[in-house]
Amino acid sequence: MTNSREIFERHVGGKLAMRSTAALVDRDDLSIAYTPGVAQVCSAIAEDPALAARYTWTSRLVAVVSDGTAVLGLGNIGPRAALPVMEGKACLFKRFADLDAIPIVLDTTDPDEIVDTVARIAPSFGGINLEDISAPRCFDIERRLVSRLDIPVMHDDQHGTAIVVLAALRNAALLTGRPFGSLRAVISGAGAAGVACAKILLAAGLGDITIVDSRGIIHSGRSDLSEAKRELASMTNIAGMTGGLADALRGADVFIGVSAGTVPEDVVATMAPNAIVFALANPRPEIDPLIATRYAAVVATGRSDHPNQINNVLAFPGIFRGAFDAGATAITEPMKLAAADALAAVVADELRPDHVVPSPFDDRVAPAVAAAVAAAAGERALLTA
Amino acid sequence: MTNSREIFERHVGGKLAMRSTAALVDRDDLSIAYTPGVAQVCSAIAEDPALAARYTWTSRLVAVVSDGTAVLGLGNIGPRAALPVMEGKACLFKRFADLDAIPIVLDTTDPDEIVDTVARIAPSFGGINLEDISAPRCFDIERRLVSRLDIPVMHDDQHGTAIVVLAALRNAALLTGRPFGSLRAVISGAGAAGVACAKILLAAGLGDITIVDSRGIIHSGRSDLSEAKRELASMTNIAGMTGGLADALRGADVFIGVSAGTVPEDVVATMAPNAIVFALANPRPEIDPLIATRYAAVVATGRSDHPNQINNVLAFPGIFRGAFDAGATAITEPMKLAAADALAAVVADELRPDHVVPSPFDDRVAPAVAAAVAAAAGERALLTA
Repeated sequence: MTNSREIFERHVGGKLAMRSTAALVDRDDLSIAYTPGVAQVCSAIAEDPALAARYTWTSRLVAVVSDGTAVLGLGNIGPRAALPVMEGKACLFKRFADLDAIPIVLDTTDPDEIVDTVARIAPSFGGINLEDISAPRCFDIERRLVSRLDIPVMHDDQHGTAIVVLAALRNAALLTGRPFGSLRAVISGAGAAGVACAKILLAAGLGDITIVDSRGIIHSGRSDLSEAKRELASMTNIAGMTGGLADALRGADVFIGVSAGTVPEDVVATMAPNAIVFALANPRPEIDPLIATRYAAVVATGRSDHPNQINNVLAFPGIFRGAFDAGATAITEPMKLAAADALAAVVADELRPDHVVPSPFDDRVAPAVAAAVAAAAGERALLTA
Repeated sequence: MTNSREIFERHVGGKLAMRSTAALVDRDDLSIAYTPGVAQVCSAIAEDPALAARYTWTSRLVAVVSDGTAVLGLGNIGPRAALPVMEGKACLFKRFADLDAIPIVLDTTDPDEIVDTVARIAPSFGGINLEDISAPRCFDIERRLVSRLDIPVMHDDQHGTAIVVLAALRNAALLTGRPFGSLRAVISGAGAAGVACAKILLAAGLGDITIVDSRGIIHSGRSDLSEAKRELASMTNIAGMTGGLADALRGADVFIGVSAGTVPEDVVATMAPNAIVFALANPRPEIDPLIATRYAAVVATGRSDHPNQINNVLAFPGIFRGAFDAGATAITEPMKLAAADALAAVVADELRPDHVVPSPFDDRVAPAVAAAVAAAAGERALLTA
């Protein structure tokens, strides 16, 4: 672990800088990049707005937008304190997908104001990555922006995590010799990541999912459910279970932890043989990986110092890259499923219990994900043409 | 003049790119720039928001904000078509002041919505450069943002132009051997630039200013004046003149054109001997420079292919640089006056009729302006301490 002093030193001045790609050496340069020459480009775009993608940087520019309400494990720390994370995210976009990205942190936590603000600045960008916005607000904010804007919008804490989880689970099923659709899965946590994991796993054909929140198993009989959780209750828990996490985990094939809290070892011991444990809480996994390996065939965490790191960076750079490459106006469910399949396929021929997802630095990942996402976007374009 | 094809070619892909200044080579780097290391920096800022200036890029980041309503001479072309200008402006910030700048174009022209939107994204930035927002909306929008935000906010079409005009006029007065305060000036145009020029010239001690808009001389007897123009009427036209531009210009020492339209030669001929003509309309100056030189001792235009180009780039990079260097929370009137004086001083020892302002590529300019602005900001800080 790097010491604090080095971490702070390496953050002095922030982690981003702009670069002018226009030559500005003499008056001629100035008259091209700025007045009077630039007026010709402006007029052309005014006549045909589609030309903005060609003559501005928006065609490779992502806004990383946060209101600072759910930052890492720190919670609601506000927009200014969230900035180092958003800068880091922008660095990752550049490093892994050669996309330009800009942090936009918001001095409001009101969903209506967030939606209006992002929609009003949207012409400045080619895509919107929502980040670290707390649940359940994040669901409504994303839904409204997706429907209002004609550029890709994705809340990464939901879908980035869900896509990597799906990829890892497909490979874990393959490795342990079970049909993906036959797995019985338990998700602990019904926040942004938990809800999105449930939805993508259902869409991918996993029929038996039980979700547990801080008050126990989510079922239709509960009267304390938010809109998002009520929707989940209707799609999951086919056995109609009630009770707590221990009840849900008994005999389960898969544990997906996207919450906090700890699962006792004797509860882990009740899972089915060859269990799959994704304990993704950071920095402290819900199940200690050393304990998990006693009972599970495959163990993944959110940590970089353990095997099988479920890291969003495996997904979001390629997803936006693919959406941009295809000129997509949204990131659709088929594009997300295609991203997960492509991510899983990268290591499908080299699966080991400690290697069901690629390393974040595997150069094959972003291009593979981008190509699959672009192809899925293209198919949709063909279908709707 | 560069041909259209080259202009368009040099705009392909836009004119800006991001750069990650954080190393991202291995897992250690990732754990510093992103999770889990970054959490320490976030927590520190959450405890002391002032640390955001040290540990994020905001301390050198300007938002170039426009609603696309008054772009160059093109008028209201909308946010997407305005983007190439805003990208160009961002390039100039980098080139001349080593500040990072980002275009933010807005999908609204409603002043309330613009103010709210900019205020909500403000924590992402260290300063706001408003650009190409039409008058009279620009006055109210700037005023409200200045009062609402604790970072520098400046509408460059107003103050950038005004500051360079003041600098050029000080030098023209010096060159022609007249006390600055004795000059009788006529401003043609009462838009963003005209209003700001009048105000800064008044603040600098020029007592006799007459402003002419499309309906003639601005005087208190007119019933068709906007709020901004009513305010101007009360501060200018001490002779109580009525009539048109020809009436105002008779015997005037100074013509400042920040409008469109053409001044006939016989009207120019009625100006005082040793007249000073700043015909700043682009691309066609209100008075052809060849004609103007027949009657005027000093002629300036907005064009790069004529001597004495009144170019905002002489002001805004140094102004924001100085404000940022001083940690200023606003760009005050004393800071603007200091900027003009510093700009004038750069060429005070080398004055010629065709050289009352420096070239945009004069390396002395931005540092001199920045130092003067920072000093003025510091004095204010001392006064209010």
